[in-house]
Amino acid sequence: MQVGILLFDDVELLDMAGPYEVFTTASRVHARTQTAGADPLFTVTTLARSLAPVRARAGLQLTPDMTLADHPPLDCALVPGGAVTAELRQPQTLAWIAAQRQSARMLASVCTGSLLLAQAGVLDGLAATTHWEDLDELRALRPAVRVQGGVRWVDEGAVVTSAGISAGIDMSLHLVERLHSRDLARRTARQMDYDWQDAA
Amino acid sequence: MQVGILLFDDVELLDMAGPYEVFTTASRVHARTQTAGADPLFTVTTLARSLAPVRARAGLQLTPDMTLADHPPLDCALVPGGAVTAELRQPQTLAWIAAQRQSARMLASVCTGSLLLAQAGVLDGLAATTHWEDLDELRALRPAVRVQGGVRWVDEGAVVTSAGISAGIDMSLHLVERLHSRDLARRTARQMDYDWQDAA
Repeated sequence: MQVGILLFDDVELLDMAGPYEVFTTASRVHARTQTAGADPLFTVTTLARSLAPVRARAGLQLTPDMTLADHPPLDCALVPGGAVTAELRQPQTLAWIAAQRQSARMLASVCTGSLLLAQAGVLDGLAATTHWEDLDELRALRPAVRVQGGVRWVDEGAVVTSAGISAGIDMSLHLVERLHSRDLARRTARQMDYDWQDAA
Repeated sequence: MQVGILLFDDVELLDMAGPYEVFTTASRVHARTQTAGADPLFTVTTLARSLAPVRARAGLQLTPDMTLADHPPLDCALVPGGAVTAELRQPQTLAWIAAQRQSARMLASVCTGSLLLAQAGVLDGLAATTHWEDLDELRALRPAVRVQGGVRWVDEGAVVTSAGISAGIDMSLHLVERLHSRDLARRTARQMDYDWQDAA
């Protein structure tokens, strides 16, 4: 399965690194029960508008693997948050998100990534969450979104949104459960020495 | 205060991203209570043997800010883990760790990063921990280390080691408490929407 994680300038590092760690660790844990040389369960790539390095919010420089215009079809398209003001005005990013809503099996966001999903119009009529500090901003940005606080993530089937920063880890473990099994999600959390908050 | 995080090929992404997020978020939260333009509480830089990009264990390309030979004196030197077999044989890395034991206020490791600390000789006679899967390997590598399992981190004052992957977040919040205050550590965890496991 293909997992694509969006990168952009001022992305919050843990918003992308949490899901990246969950899906790549799930693959590694899963491989232990497979014959050597079997295909990985998840192939995780980072995607951006261009292949130029981006700077995470606090400065770390990350180099994307592929561009939004040229990547394999995704089973899971993942949109992290961070300081998203500039990205909210990027038509290419918003068009990509809207396209993933049609083509990817799942579209998920972490933290203020849900503002990007809302701006792209893919949350209209759905329940969604974001960082506790930004719930009102999400409501104001797109009144058609049914904003929920006090949850780790909201699963609307094809679209899943998580609360702030570290909640992306809990949501990603939930996505591993949906895409494979609860057993693998639990073993992945154990491998990450992580106390999975597995009640949505 | 200067925080330096070691990067190397096959570093586990969350091992470095967890502490990076904690210290940079602590700085951001702290800045809200300061006058505009005040110096940040923590300046976080990534350090490697050269300025060439490294590849995290699952492939993500990260570009270090500075080299091990040329960076400001550190208040906290942080050694993440990952697949460390190659790095255990790098004399420059081991010499840098030994030097930080003398010069930095604190030397800390995440996950299998403690194998690098042990190999550099800085854990002899001290209690330390690592990923639950690698406790025996740490014992075998350096019998003079008093290896402890079942804890999130072990604080020996100038040297602090954490358990696996996500435990680096809990340990880093503890280091924020030591370097500034428990209040800031708690507000940082809240900003990260993280349920801090604050009992060592």
